Amino acid sequence: MEYPSKLIEDAVNEVAKLPGIGKKTALRLVLHLLKRDEEQTETLAQSLTTMRTQVKYCRKCHNLSDHELCTICASNKRDQSLICVVEDTRDVLAIENTAQYKGLYHVLGGIISPVEGIGPSDLQIDSLIARLRGTEGEQVREIILAISPTMEGDTTAFYLQKKLRPFNLKISTIARGVPIGGDLEYADEVTLGRSILSRIAYD
Amino acid sequence: MEYPSKLIEDAVNEVAKLPGIGKKTALRLVLHLLKRDEEQTETLAQSLTTMRTQVKYCRKCHNLSDHELCTICASNKRDQSLICVVEDTRDVLAIENTAQYKGLYHVLGGIISPVEGIGPSDLQIDSLIARLRGTEGEQVREIILAISPTMEGDTTAFYLQKKLRPFNLKISTIARGVPIGGDLEYADEVTLGRSILSRIAYD
Repeated sequence: MEYPSKLIEDAVNEVAKLPGIGKKTALRLVLHLLKRDEEQTETLAQSLTTMRTQVKYCRKCHNLSDHELCTICASNKRDQSLICVVEDTRDVLAIENTAQYKGLYHVLGGIISPVEGIGPSDLQIDSLIARLRGTEGEQVREIILAISPTMEGDTTAFYLQKKLRPFNLKISTIARGVPIGGDLEYADEVTLGRSILSRIAYD
Repeated sequence: MEYPSKLIEDAVNEVAKLPGIGKKTALRLVLHLLKRDEEQTETLAQSLTTMRTQVKYCRKCHNLSDHELCTICASNKRDQSLICVVEDTRDVLAIENTAQYKGLYHVLGGIISPVEGIGPSDLQIDSLIARLRGTEGEQVREIILAISPTMEGDTTAFYLQKKLRPFNLKISTIARGVPIGGDLEYADEVTLGRSILSRIAYD
């Protein structure tokens, strides 16, 4: 496509580098910004640059943070003996939204994926082990592996289980089964099969 | 949702102001930028700001342009007696992509929409009339109204027809009918009805 302006073309190309945004959507977004005040574009550009250059990672759990310790790690209301291991910040947000968990987190920063060339050493696994050894003054009693039940997620969970076994603590994973509100008929056979094997007894 | 960082929250809020992008998508985009080099975010922010502050509108056709005259208006290969009136830049790009049109354009910058409070005076209609009067040295023979066949588009086209009638030039509109490759069975009755009324005789 031949753009009427080099400036537009540059902006469209940069926006289209974002995941899930093609050239057509990028052009729509750029034209939208042109219809709005200059200030809106300025604020957008500024907030992206500031975010990228100034955001920190929590020293303890490696979640995104404005300070050296994130608000969760710094809180005295959280159960310091429980660590939930997740892939990235979005998982922390999702679990926090449930308001069902009161322990700490550990953000791996990815999952093991040979296809994308991500191995255990690219993830925050050594720092998790350091936490278990007590370098951060924590006395961890249980580790919950809250990693997506995909091929790569299961590999990562399996690797972590092996690494964590010597520490003699409780290791659990989040329950897999039929989603609440879901229809049995439409559940895939693997999920349905596991949900029968892991059936829960009524009290 | 409670974000782990004020910087992330600000960036997500700004990105989510773009049309069609919700908070979840915005967060995904922001986290994507965090995984890439700082340079990518810097280039993105810079290209948006430069585009917003430096892009011009062509003096003649009001299309986006890097110079006072856009490349189409400045070209001596285009038929100066033909003006195609469109809603915005995207329509120019779409028509240019067909490689079937060799005249000039006139970009209205919108269409008449009482719901959104856009009236004829908000559009580049006076400047179109000025072009027909010859202020730009053009001798226009035909105007093609290439405006979307929607309620608002038809209103705009109807308004323009009345405004342009005194100039004694040919006024046409793009053909409406069954799309090529489309299935008659699935064409809506208005389109199909019109395509019968506007049937084309074989040579």
